[in-house]
Amino acid sequence: MKRIAIDMDEVIADFASKHLGVYNRDFGESLTLQDVQGARLWHARPELANEILSYLDHPDFFRDLDVIEGSQDVVRLLSERYEIFITTAAMEHPASFTAKYQWLTEHFPFLSDRNFVFCGDKSIIYADYLIDDSSRHFARFSGTGILYTAPHNIHETGHIRVNNWEDIRQYFLGETLL
Amino acid sequence: MKRIAIDMDEVIADFASKHLGVYNRDFGESLTLQDVQGARLWHARPELANEILSYLDHPDFFRDLDVIEGSQDVVRLLSERYEIFITTAAMEHPASFTAKYQWLTEHFPFLSDRNFVFCGDKSIIYADYLIDDSSRHFARFSGTGILYTAPHNIHETGHIRVNNWEDIRQYFLGETLL
Repeated sequence: MKRIAIDMDEVIADFASKHLGVYNRDFGESLTLQDVQGARLWHARPELANEILSYLDHPDFFRDLDVIEGSQDVVRLLSERYEIFITTAAMEHPASFTAKYQWLTEHFPFLSDRNFVFCGDKSIIYADYLIDDSSRHFARFSGTGILYTAPHNIHETGHIRVNNWEDIRQYFLGETLL
Repeated sequence: MKRIAIDMDEVIADFASKHLGVYNRDFGESLTLQDVQGARLWHARPELANEILSYLDHPDFFRDLDVIEGSQDVVRLLSERYEIFITTAAMEHPASFTAKYQWLTEHFPFLSDRNFVFCGDKSIIYADYLIDDSSRHFARFSGTGILYTAPHNIHETGHIRVNNWEDIRQYFLGETLL
Protein backbone atom coordinates (compact mmCIF):
# COMPACT_ATOMS: atom_id res chain seq x y z
CA MET A 1 0.00 0.00 0.00
CA LYS A 2 1.54 3.31 -1.01
CA ARG A 3 1.87 6.05 1.54
CA ILE A 4 0.78 9.70 1.39
CA ALA A 5 2.11 12.21 3.92
CA ILE A 6 -0.13 15.26 4.33
CA ASP A 7 0.83 18.58 5.89
CA MET A 8 -1.57 20.38 8.26
CA ASP A 9 -1.40 24.18 7.95
CA GLU A 10 -2.78 25.47 4.65
CA VAL A 11 -3.51 21.91 3.46
CA ILE A 12 -6.10 20.55 5.90
CA ALA A 13 -6.14 23.43 8.43
CA ASP A 14 -6.96 26.98 7.33
CA PHE A 15 -4.03 28.75 8.92
CA ALA A 16 -3.83 31.91 6.76
CA SER A 17 -7.45 33.01 7.27
CA LYS A 18 -7.21 32.94 11.04
CA HIS A 19 -3.80 34.59 11.08
CA LEU A 20 -5.04 37.39 8.85
CA GLY A 21 -8.19 37.71 10.96
CA VAL A 22 -6.41 38.22 14.28
CA TYR A 23 -3.93 40.58 12.63
CA ASN A 24 -6.70 42.73 11.11
CA ARG A 25 -8.57 42.78 14.43
CA ASP A 26 -5.57 43.86 16.49
CA PHE A 27 -3.98 46.29 14.03
CA GLY A 28 -7.16 47.88 12.65
CA GLU A 29 -6.50 46.73 9.11
CA SER A 30 -8.73 44.99 6.59
CA LEU A 31 -6.22 43.03 4.55
CA THR A 32 -7.59 40.15 2.48
CA LEU A 33 -5.88 36.96 1.33
CA GLN A 34 -5.73 38.62 -2.10
CA ASP A 35 -3.62 41.39 -0.61
CA VAL A 36 -0.96 38.96 0.58
CA GLN A 37 -0.74 36.81 -2.54
CA GLY A 38 2.79 35.63 -3.17
CA ALA A 39 4.02 36.39 0.34
CA ARG A 40 3.56 35.49 3.96
CA LEU A 41 1.68 38.00 6.08
CA TRP A 42 4.90 38.78 7.97
CA HIS A 43 6.62 39.57 4.70
CA ALA A 44 3.83 41.93 3.70
CA ARG A 45 4.24 43.87 6.98
CA PRO A 46 7.93 43.35 7.79
CA GLU A 47 7.98 46.12 10.38
CA LEU A 48 5.46 44.08 12.40
CA ALA A 49 6.98 40.66 11.76
CA ASN A 50 7.75 39.93 15.41
CA GLU A 51 4.23 40.76 16.55
CA ILE A 52 2.68 38.83 13.66
CA LEU A 53 4.76 35.73 14.33
CA SER A 54 4.17 35.87 18.07
CA TYR A 55 0.52 34.88 17.55
CA LEU A 56 1.79 31.43 16.60
CA ASP A 57 3.42 30.93 19.98
CA HIS A 58 0.07 31.11 21.75
CA PRO A 59 -0.88 27.58 22.89
CA ASP A 60 -4.42 27.91 21.51
CA PHE A 61 -3.74 29.54 18.15
CA PHE A 62 -3.91 26.30 16.18
CA ARG A 63 -6.81 24.78 18.16
CA ASP A 64 -9.74 26.36 16.31
CA LEU A 65 -8.53 26.65 12.73
CA ASP A 66 -11.21 25.91 10.14
CA VAL A 67 -10.92 22.66 8.23
CA ILE A 68 -9.95 23.14 4.58
CA GLU A 69 -12.95 22.35 2.38
CA GLY A 70 -13.11 18.79 1.16
CA SER A 71 -10.11 17.56 3.11
CA GLN A 72 -12.03 15.32 5.52
CA ASP A 73 -14.00 13.53 2.79
CA VAL A 74 -11.04 13.05 0.47
CA VAL A 75 -8.61 11.96 3.21
CA ARG A 76 -11.19 9.40 4.35
CA LEU A 77 -11.52 8.14 0.78
CA LEU A 78 -7.74 8.07 0.26
CA SER A 79 -7.28 6.14 3.51
CA GLU A 80 -9.07 3.17 1.94
CA ARG A 81 -6.37 2.79 -0.70
CA TYR A 82 -3.32 4.52 0.75
CA GLU A 83 -1.57 4.66 4.08
CA ILE A 84 -2.10 8.21 5.37
CA PHE A 85 0.23 10.11 7.71
CA ILE A 86 -0.24 13.70 8.87
CA THR A 87 3.18 15.36 8.96
CA THR A 88 3.42 18.86 10.39
CA ALA A 89 6.44 21.04 11.10
CA ALA A 90 5.26 21.56 14.69
CA MET A 91 8.81 22.05 16.03
CA GLU A 92 8.68 25.59 14.61
CA HIS A 93 6.03 26.36 17.23
CA PRO A 94 6.51 24.02 20.20
CA ALA A 95 3.64 25.66 22.09
CA SER A 96 1.32 24.29 19.41
CA PHE A 97 1.77 20.55 20.10
CA THR A 98 -1.31 19.97 22.23
CA ALA A 99 -3.61 22.16 20.13
CA LYS A 100 -2.50 20.43 16.95
CA TYR A 101 -3.01 16.99 18.45
CA GLN A 102 -6.48 17.89 19.72
CA TRP A 103 -7.43 19.48 16.39
CA LEU A 104 -6.43 16.33 14.51
CA THR A 105 -8.31 13.96 16.82
CA GLU A 106 -11.39 16.20 16.60
CA HIS A 107 -11.50 16.69 12.84
CA PHE A 108 -9.84 13.50 11.56
CA PRO A 109 -11.06 10.93 14.11
CA PHE A 110 -10.84 8.16 11.52
CA LEU A 111 -7.04 8.45 11.48
CA SER A 112 -4.95 6.78 14.17
CA ASP A 113 -2.75 9.09 16.21
CA ARG A 114 0.03 6.60 15.48
CA ASN A 115 0.01 8.22 12.04
CA PHE A 116 0.56 11.77 13.29
CA VAL A 117 4.09 13.14 12.98
CA PHE A 118 5.30 16.38 14.58
CA CYS A 119 8.65 17.17 13.06
CA GLY A 120 10.84 19.92 11.67
CA ASP A 121 12.94 18.85 8.71
CA LYS A 122 10.56 16.73 6.61
CA SER A 123 13.35 14.88 4.82
CA ILE A 124 12.93 12.43 7.74
CA ILE A 125 9.52 11.41 6.30
CA TYR A 126 9.44 8.08 4.47
CA ALA A 127 6.48 8.24 2.13
CA ASP A 128 5.70 7.98 -1.55
CA TYR A 129 4.01 11.39 -1.68
CA LEU A 130 4.11 14.55 0.40
CA ILE A 131 1.28 17.07 -0.03
CA ASP A 132 2.53 20.37 1.38
CA ASP A 133 2.20 24.10 0.85
CA SER A 134 5.93 24.67 1.56
CA SER A 135 8.04 23.52 -1.36
CA ARG A 136 11.21 23.75 0.73
CA HIS A 137 10.25 20.38 2.20
CA PHE A 138 10.45 18.75 -1.24
CA ALA A 139 14.17 19.40 -1.83
CA ARG A 140 15.41 16.46 0.23
CA PHE A 141 12.15 14.45 0.34
CA SER A 142 12.63 10.94 -1.02
CA GLY A 143 9.20 10.70 -2.64
CA THR A 144 7.08 12.92 -4.90
CA GLY A 145 6.26 16.38 -3.61
CA ILE A 146 2.84 17.84 -4.42
CA LEU A 147 2.45 21.57 -3.83
CA TYR A 148 -0.89 22.57 -2.32
CA THR A 149 -1.77 26.08 -3.43
CA ALA A 150 -1.69 28.69 -0.68
CA PRO A 151 -1.53 32.49 -0.94
CA HIS A 152 2.22 32.52 -0.25
CA ASN A 153 3.15 30.01 -2.99
CA ILE A 154 1.03 31.04 -5.97
CA HIS A 155 3.99 32.28 -7.99
CA GLU A 156 6.08 29.13 -7.51
CA THR A 157 6.69 26.82 -10.43
CA GLY A 158 8.48 23.54 -10.97
CA HIS A 159 6.26 21.34 -8.80
CA ILE A 160 3.18 19.22 -9.27
CA ARG A 161 0.46 21.57 -8.02
CA VAL A 162 -3.03 20.98 -6.65
CA ASN A 163 -5.42 23.83 -5.97
CA ASN A 164 -7.92 22.06 -3.75
CA TRP A 165 -8.95 18.66 -2.42
CA GLU A 166 -10.94 17.87 -5.56
CA ASP A 167 -7.63 18.10 -7.46
CA ILE A 168 -6.09 15.67 -4.96
CA ARG A 169 -8.99 13.26 -5.35
CA GLN A 170 -8.54 13.37 -9.12
CA TYR A 171 -4.78 12.90 -8.87
CA PHE A 172 -4.93 9.83 -6.68
CA LEU A 173 -8.33 8.34 -7.41
CA GLY A 174 -9.21 9.55 -10.88
CA GLU A 175 -12.92 9.30 -11.48
CA THR A 176 -13.78 7.69 -8.13
CA LEU A 177 -16.79 9.54 -6.75
CA LEU A 178 -16.98 10.71 -3.17
CA MET B 1 25.97 11.82 5.05
CA LYS B 2 24.22 8.81 6.52
CA ARG B 3 21.44 9.33 8.99
CA ILE B 4 20.91 7.83 12.45
CA ALA B 5 17.50 8.04 14.16
CA ILE B 6 17.70 7.71 17.93
CA ASP B 7 14.82 6.90 20.28
CA MET B 8 14.45 8.78 23.59
CA ASP B 9 13.06 6.61 26.39
CA GLU B 10 15.51 3.91 27.53
CA VAL B 11 18.07 5.02 24.94
CA ILE B 12 18.99 8.59 25.90
CA ALA B 13 16.42 9.15 28.70
CA ASP B 14 16.32 6.85 31.73
CA PHE B 15 12.61 6.10 31.71
CA ALA B 16 12.54 2.80 33.59
CA SER B 17 14.39 4.02 36.69
CA LYS B 18 12.01 6.90 37.29
CA HIS B 19 8.94 4.82 36.56
CA LEU B 20 10.06 2.16 39.02
CA GLY B 21 10.95 4.84 41.58
CA VAL B 22 7.53 6.50 41.60
CA TYR B 23 5.83 3.11 41.64
CA ASN B 24 7.87 1.92 44.65
CA ARG B 25 7.23 5.19 46.46
CA ASP B 26 3.47 5.12 45.96
CA PHE B 27 2.86 1.40 46.40
CA GLY B 28 5.32 0.72 49.21
CA GLU B 29 7.40 -1.73 47.21
CA SER B 30 11.11 -1.96 46.65
CA LEU B 31 11.31 -3.54 43.22
CA THR B 32 14.59 -3.20 41.35
CA LEU B 33 15.29 -3.19 37.63
CA GLN B 34 16.57 -6.73 38.12
CA ASP B 35 13.13 -7.74 39.34
CA VAL B 36 11.46 -6.64 36.12
CA GLN B 37 13.98 -8.10 33.66
CA GLY B 38 12.26 -9.36 30.53
CA ALA B 39 9.04 -7.45 31.12
CA ARG B 40 7.58 -4.00 31.44
CA LEU B 41 6.71 -2.85 34.94
CA TRP B 42 3.00 -3.00 34.06
CA HIS B 43 3.40 -6.60 32.96
CA ALA B 44 5.09 -7.49 36.27
CA ARG B 45 2.13 -6.03 38.20
CA PRO B 46 -0.79 -6.55 35.78
CA GLU B 47 -3.43 -5.91 38.43
CA LEU B 48 -2.04 -2.37 38.77
CA ALA B 49 -1.42 -1.76 35.06
CA ASN B 50 -3.86 1.15 34.80
CA GLU B 51 -2.34 2.97 37.75
CA ILE B 52 1.20 2.26 36.57
CA LEU B 53 0.50 3.52 33.06
CA SER B 54 -1.35 6.60 34.29
CA TYR B 55 1.94 8.08 35.57
CA LEU B 56 2.91 8.56 31.93
CA ASP B 57 -0.05 10.83 31.29
CA HIS B 58 1.22 13.39 33.77
CA PRO B 59 2.58 16.40 31.82
CA ASP B 60 5.77 16.50 33.88
CA PHE B 61 6.65 12.80 34.06
CA PHE B 62 9.18 12.94 31.22
CA ARG B 63 10.66 16.33 32.16
CA ASP B 64 13.24 15.23 34.76
CA LEU B 65 14.38 11.82 33.52
CA ASP B 66 18.08 11.20 33.97
CA VAL B 67 20.26 11.21 30.88
CA ILE B 68 21.53 7.75 29.93
CA GLU B 69 25.27 7.57 30.64
CA GLY B 70 27.45 8.43 27.69
CA SER B 71 24.63 9.42 25.37
CA GLN B 72 25.44 13.13 25.25
CA ASP B 73 29.12 12.66 24.45
CA VAL B 74 28.57 9.96 21.85
CA VAL B 75 25.65 11.71 20.13
CA ARG B 76 27.80 14.84 19.90
CA LEU B 77 30.60 12.81 18.37
CA LEU B 78 28.26 11.00 15.98
CA SER B 79 26.75 14.30 14.88
CA GLU B 80 30.08 15.23 13.29
CA ARG B 81 29.87 12.32 10.85
CA TYR B 82 26.18 11.44 10.70
CA GLU B 83 22.92 13.31 10.46
CA ILE B 84 21.18 12.75 13.81
CA PHE B 85 17.42 12.75 14.40
CA ILE B 86 15.70 12.06 17.71
CA THR B 87 12.58 10.01 17.02
CA THR B 88 10.22 9.30 19.90
CA ALA B 89 6.81 7.63 19.97
CA ALA B 90 5.34 10.60 21.81
CA MET B 91 1.84 10.07 20.36
CA GLU B 92 1.41 7.27 22.92
CA HIS B 93 1.47 9.94 25.63
CA PRO B 94 0.26 13.21 24.13
CA ALA B 95 0.56 14.99 27.47
CA SER B 96 4.32 14.47 27.23
CA PHE B 97 5.01 16.67 24.19
CA THR B 98 6.17 19.80 25.99
CA ALA B 99 8.21 17.95 28.63
CA LYS B 100 9.97 15.88 25.98
CA TYR B 101 10.75 18.97 23.90
CA GLN B 102 12.13 20.84 26.91
CA TRP B 103 14.16 17.81 28.03
CA LEU B 104 15.77 17.52 24.59
CA THR B 105 16.63 21.20 24.32
CA GLU B 106 18.11 21.11 27.84
CA HIS B 107 20.22 17.97 27.51
CA PHE B 108 21.03 17.92 23.78
CA PRO B 109 21.35 21.65 23.02
CA PHE B 110 23.79 20.92 20.18
CA LEU B 111 21.00 19.30 18.15
CA SER B 112 18.56 21.43 16.18
CA ASP B 113 14.91 21.02 17.10
CA ARG B 114 14.31 20.62 13.38
CA ASN B 115 15.74 17.15 13.95
CA PHE B 116 13.25 16.16 16.66
CA VAL B 117 10.40 13.89 15.58
CA PHE B 118 7.37 13.08 17.73
CA CYS B 119 5.57 10.20 16.05
CA GLY B 120 3.77 6.94 16.62
CA ASP B 121 4.44 4.35 13.93
CA LYS B 122 8.18 4.67 13.24
CA SER B 123 7.96 3.13 9.79
CA ILE B 124 7.48 6.77 8.73
CA ILE B 125 11.13 7.47 9.65
CA TYR B 126 13.54 7.72 6.73
CA ALA B 127 16.97 6.93 8.10
CA ASP B 128 19.81 4.50 7.60
CA TYR B 129 19.78 3.35 11.23
CA LEU B 130 17.28 3.37 14.08
CA ILE B 131 18.58 2.87 17.63
CA ASP B 132 15.59 1.86 19.74
CA ASP B 133 14.72 -0.28 22.75
CA SER B 134 11.44 -1.43 21.14
CA SER B 135 12.09 -3.95 18.39
CA ARG B 136 8.51 -3.65 17.12
CA HIS B 137 9.62 -0.47 15.36
CA PHE B 138 12.13 -2.40 13.25
CA ALA B 139 9.57 -4.61 11.45
CA ARG B 140 8.61 -2.01 8.86
CA PHE B 141 11.63 0.30 9.23
CA SER B 142 13.42 0.80 5.92
CA GLY B 143 16.92 0.95 7.42
CA THR B 144 18.90 -1.08 9.95
CA GLY B 145 17.40 -1.47 13.41
CA ILE B 146 19.76 -1.52 16.40
CA LEU B 147 18.27 -2.77 19.65
CA TYR B 148 19.37 -0.81 22.71
CA THR B 149 19.33 -3.09 25.75
CA ALA B 150 16.65 -2.25 28.30
CA PRO B 151 15.23 -4.40 31.11
CA HIS B 152 12.15 -5.33 29.07
CA ASN B 153 14.05 -6.56 25.98
CA ILE B 154 16.94 -8.59 27.43
CA HIS B 155 15.55 -11.92 26.24
CA GLU B 156 14.98 -10.78 22.65
CA THR B 157 17.16 -12.14 19.89
CA GLY B 158 17.44 -11.61 16.15
CA HIS B 159 18.57 -7.99 16.20
CA ILE B 160 21.85 -6.13 16.26
CA ARG B 161 22.15 -5.29 19.95
CA VAL B 162 24.05 -2.60 21.83
CA ASN B 163 24.28 -2.57 25.62
CA ASN B 164 25.40 1.00 26.18
CA TRP B 165 26.65 4.12 24.41
CA GLU B 166 30.21 2.82 24.29
CA ASP B 167 28.89 -0.04 22.14
CA ILE B 168 27.25 2.53 19.86
CA ARG B 169 30.47 4.51 19.59
CA GLN B 170 32.33 1.35 18.64
CA TYR B 171 29.69 0.34 16.10
CA PHE B 172 29.69 3.64 14.25
CA LEU B 173 33.10 5.11 14.95
CA GLY B 174 35.32 2.14 15.73
CA GLU B 175 38.41 3.23 17.58
CA THR B 176 37.67 6.96 17.51
CA LEU B 177 38.30 8.31 20.99
CA LEU B 178 35.86 10.57 22.80
